Amino acid sequence: MQKIIKIGGNVVDNPELLEKFIIDFAAMDGPKILVHGGGVMASQLQKELGRQPVMIEGRRVTDEETLKVVTMVYAGWCSKSIVALLQKHGCNAIGLCGADANLIEATKRPAGRIDYGFVGDVDPSMINAGFLLSLMEQGITPVISAITHDKAGSLLNTNADTIASSVAVAMSHAEAAKTEDGKPYVSLIYCFEKDGVLYDKDDDSSLIREITPASYAALKAEGRVAAGMIPKLDNSFRALDSGVSRVIVKHARNLLNGIGTTLCL
Amino acid sequence: MQKIIKIGGNVVDNPELLEKFIIDFAAMDGPKILVHGGGVMASQLQKELGRQPVMIEGRRVTDEETLKVVTMVYAGWCSKSIVALLQKHGCNAIGLCGADANLIEATKRPAGRIDYGFVGDVDPSMINAGFLLSLMEQGITPVISAITHDKAGSLLNTNADTIASSVAVAMSHAEAAKTEDGKPYVSLIYCFEKDGVLYDKDDDSSLIREITPASYAALKAEGRVAAGMIPKLDNSFRALDSGVSRVIVKHARNLLNGIGTTLCL
Repeated sequence: MQKIIKIGGNVVDNPELLEKFIIDFAAMDGPKILVHGGGVMASQLQKELGRQPVMIEGRRVTDEETLKVVTMVYAGWCSKSIVALLQKHGCNAIGLCGADANLIEATKRPAGRIDYGFVGDVDPSMINAGFLLSLMEQGITPVISAITHDKAGSLLNTNADTIASSVAVAMSHAEAAKTEDGKPYVSLIYCFEKDGVLYDKDDDSSLIREITPASYAALKAEGRVAAGMIPKLDNSFRALDSGVSRVIVKHARNLLNGIGTTLCL
Repeated sequence: MQKIIKIGGNVVDNPELLEKFIIDFAAMDGPKILVHGGGVMASQLQKELGRQPVMIEGRRVTDEETLKVVTMVYAGWCSKSIVALLQKHGCNAIGLCGADANLIEATKRPAGRIDYGFVGDVDPSMINAGFLLSLMEQGITPVISAITHDKAGSLLNTNADTIASSVAVAMSHAEAAKTEDGKPYVSLIYCFEKDGVLYDKDDDSSLIREITPASYAALKAEGRVAAGMIPKLDNSFRALDSGVSRVIVKHARNLLNGIGTTLCL
């Protein structure tokens, strides 16, 4: 089973939680890929430089100066300090952005109603799965930051959740070609700062263990799913439809135990 | 002939010179590795963040905050924007620091008369030449930033000239094992903002075409070598003694032509 694991900016920005997570991640058997954000730190650096982060519908408007900041933070400090910690704990990691070895060639989002600037959109066909496989065959664990490129010289700020699901789908296709029954075995795991999807968002004990498309529709109809979770879950069901074996949403501290929400078809 | 090419912070910080250099570098045939600095930009970011860069004998004193800045600048913005430009010009590059795939495990410099903080020292035995070769065999060009690690979780700020010569020596040993006559074929090329070593430092037309250990001793005795060049040239002669075929010092704009100073034994 190949595992694609995504951690968000709140985990990356919490040194204790991050090191516990890194130790657990390093201890996991089998091929694995880590995708990380770093948005909390990027906003902080923008403020230290006297600029105000501009977010529209949860996405960062990325002008040239902001592109420099997010590249420095995600592909620089977050990526390399995560890799150094993984190396400390015996995991031979490599920190990559989408420009490296042309790993993810994205499309600059056209300026419509909103001009997000240097923001890239990705889909599974844009992932260089062959290069990721060649690294994993050498025992090297890819750590991917949410910076891509347009192959015309521009870096692009890209949503880390979408990178994680696109990588998972691309790896599913690559793996399916290799297994005897043609079935892929790829899990996509989103780690954040809640135990999973909660029935009552203010009650941590109301964890939903499993969500199917039918129960998801019912939860949405009841207004039980927090607005911020909807893109993540929509995205997850699309990944399942596209060949990913399972998607799990869980707390970063629970990487190695069974606590979390499993999405399945 | 394998080429290890180093560009300094003044080249990285000059967008026109950098893009011309990148186009030339992308056009060069054969296996090649780029090592880059970024010190000018790092000092600028330190100042924008309200801190004063502290340099002693040309080396940056690197406390925790400075380590974060140099990692963001060298391994983040400089590395990834160089890689994106190389991809634009048809060179399949990958940006690496020493923590990535355990490429360069350095030793933290002990605090002596001066405590440089998070500064690492390297030698050729610390370079993971096998990983560089495996990338080059896949047609991927390594771009190395001057950040290493101690394998105990710390990143370390490291001199880019020393990384370049250590990589060149390590690749010489790896290449010598592969050639029929046991001879390595590795060039080390330092690109900076002068045509090479000048006989009169204020006269750009006084370029010295070739320096041997004997002529170098004479130049030093006459006081003809600028103080800043001495560590670079000492380092270069050590690389020649350790198996590198030739060392060339030249202007970044002259990468593809013969103008420069060649050091030979």
